[in-house]
Amino acid sequence: MPNERIPADALRQLATDVLVALDVVPEHAAITAQRLVEADLRGRTGHGIIRLPPYCTRIRAGGYNLRPAITVRRDTPVSALVDGDNGLGQVVVTHAVDVAVDKARTSGIGWVGTVRSNHAGAAGVYTALALNEGFGAMYFAVANANGMPPWGGRERLLGTNPIAVAFPAGNEPAFELDIATTVASHGTIDVKVRAGEPLPEGWVQDVDGNPITDPARADEGFLVPIGGYKGSGLNFMIGTLAGIMTGAAFGRDVVSFRDDHVTPTNTGQAIVVFRPDLFLERGEYERRMDDVLHDFRTSESATDDPVRLPGDHARRTIADNLEHGIAVPRELIAKLQALAEDVGVDARLRATG
Amino acid sequence: MPNERIPADALRQLATDVLVALDVVPEHAAITAQRLVEADLRGRTGHGIIRLPPYCTRIRAGGYNLRPAITVRRDTPVSALVDGDNGLGQVVVTHAVDVAVDKARTSGIGWVGTVRSNHAGAAGVYTALALNEGFGAMYFAVANANGMPPWGGRERLLGTNPIAVAFPAGNEPAFELDIATTVASHGTIDVKVRAGEPLPEGWVQDVDGNPITDPARADEGFLVPIGGYKGSGLNFMIGTLAGIMTGAAFGRDVVSFRDDHVTPTNTGQAIVVFRPDLFLERGEYERRMDDVLHDFRTSESATDDPVRLPGDHARRTIADNLEHGIAVPRELIAKLQALAEDVGVDARLRATG
Repeated sequence: MPNERIPADALRQLATDVLVALDVVPEHAAITAQRLVEADLRGRTGHGIIRLPPYCTRIRAGGYNLRPAITVRRDTPVSALVDGDNGLGQVVVTHAVDVAVDKARTSGIGWVGTVRSNHAGAAGVYTALALNEGFGAMYFAVANANGMPPWGGRERLLGTNPIAVAFPAGNEPAFELDIATTVASHGTIDVKVRAGEPLPEGWVQDVDGNPITDPARADEGFLVPIGGYKGSGLNFMIGTLAGIMTGAAFGRDVVSFRDDHVTPTNTGQAIVVFRPDLFLERGEYERRMDDVLHDFRTSESATDDPVRLPGDHARRTIADNLEHGIAVPRELIAKLQALAEDVGVDARLRATG
Repeated sequence: MPNERIPADALRQLATDVLVALDVVPEHAAITAQRLVEADLRGRTGHGIIRLPPYCTRIRAGGYNLRPAITVRRDTPVSALVDGDNGLGQVVVTHAVDVAVDKARTSGIGWVGTVRSNHAGAAGVYTALALNEGFGAMYFAVANANGMPPWGGRERLLGTNPIAVAFPAGNEPAFELDIATTVASHGTIDVKVRAGEPLPEGWVQDVDGNPITDPARADEGFLVPIGGYKGSGLNFMIGTLAGIMTGAAFGRDVVSFRDDHVTPTNTGQAIVVFRPDLFLERGEYERRMDDVLHDFRTSESATDDPVRLPGDHARRTIADNLEHGIAVPRELIAKLQALAEDVGVDARLRATG
């Protein structure tokens, strides 16, 4: 599908205006718009501005609390639970990161869970917030739909449960990992389905473990965990950290964000922010991290391009998107403009240049 | 190869006596023997008593410090670095777990790294120590040999870097994950090589990414990360937590435990011990964990057996091994008895019953 390159500012403004028009608190609208655009900038388009229409559907259906009292409970010098009161996920998790960063600044570590939160988009956006403050971070989230049984099972009890991790460096670009613990995420599969292209083997399988490659049959299949029982175990670990420990949904009580626009999802996330110099002087940590990152990036490549570490692609994508605008499919542009018009917002998305 | 079932006590005694005969401090010998036997009991035989002969080779070559001054540095209420002074890995990491548990007891979280440590065996043995005290734990280690390039590379800079995670429950058996972030570990591959059986596709590949299945060619190949670039990223994350942050070896400076018996390995590990009730009352946490574990274990199975969660197999193996003895290959029994005789220890390993 052909894309237009739209400036990040224009998308941010449109998202903010639309959310405010739907009675979202301006500050919450601005935070949500910012996190959506950050996802797009990083190339995580499945968690970017494409989510604005479904968020608005849910807002209009009454599925969100638009005046949430976001509170901090179980507060200790190193940990806290942020109760999102069913507010917008981006707002709840951004607050959780702020709390965790403050604790890491004073205690070395800040571990913050969320409960009664909602879908918050790209995991790596939140570890990047901590990274920008000079901290390392690990982020875990319970996905908003179950598409996978436990290893050896047949009942959909697990989602794509993502993990993101960031470590700062000195002069080298940082390490930033942002992955689902399934081989393919719903968003990645949707791209193939919309294009009518066959699914690569290993992405989706039927109840008997046979690969499903027909895009028309994608929905009847199960997602596949990375590394078989290993990824399935990591997926459960993430669900425990982000869901069970925080009091949020995990397993049978997960509410599908796609099919149900009204029931509170009680989504859970967890972020651990830490000083990367917990054990060394900051300068020594940075020197060591730089050395290893440099060794890896300049090591012999299997291709004509240099070896790429997690985060390198996102960083290049951000720079390119800031210069040339974010690539938005024309179909989505039309959808966003119709949405804006529908809520009385004047927004013409014009391509860059 | 035929096995004999040997009582755990006999293996523990033999290991202790042999290590003491080689001038290891009795307390350190006892801890090392205990951790090796715990690995065997859990079915992690690649990190069990089979490691005693190579440990002794290294001790005799002067590769260990047998009178290490194991010290705690960078001590805070939530974190510390344990300097192992090149002592036996099991001793260093056991001490690190003790320190982390103490911190978790008072602060909620205890994050302890190790530096100048050594190979410490099965990861899950250490999270189990924290679990026995009622805590959750995550453990990370830099493996003792590099067998894998970074994703898209050709230079061996990464090992099997394992992660272990444990969460306590109330009445349900706990969740205990213990995995390498490669599809197969060296130990698993060695079993096939010794049996002369072909390697399953996906375990080992050549520099061009083609599968190597000939067991005679296993050594020339690269290990494969779980989930491609995703597992490669997790592997680097583990190396950063356990190696870069602690001042231990990771990447080019990893010393191969297999080929070099003298150079200090400067191995690093990290363990994060935490109260699972950081965010909920203990009773509520346990009830929630029990409910989810029960839902998963009783969910529809794809086989004739119930769905098994990480840790379930280890738990059954421990019970069976305690009752019937640990299955030790006759070849290894002969090797252990020769080793004992060689250092002047009187040890006849007799099968159970």
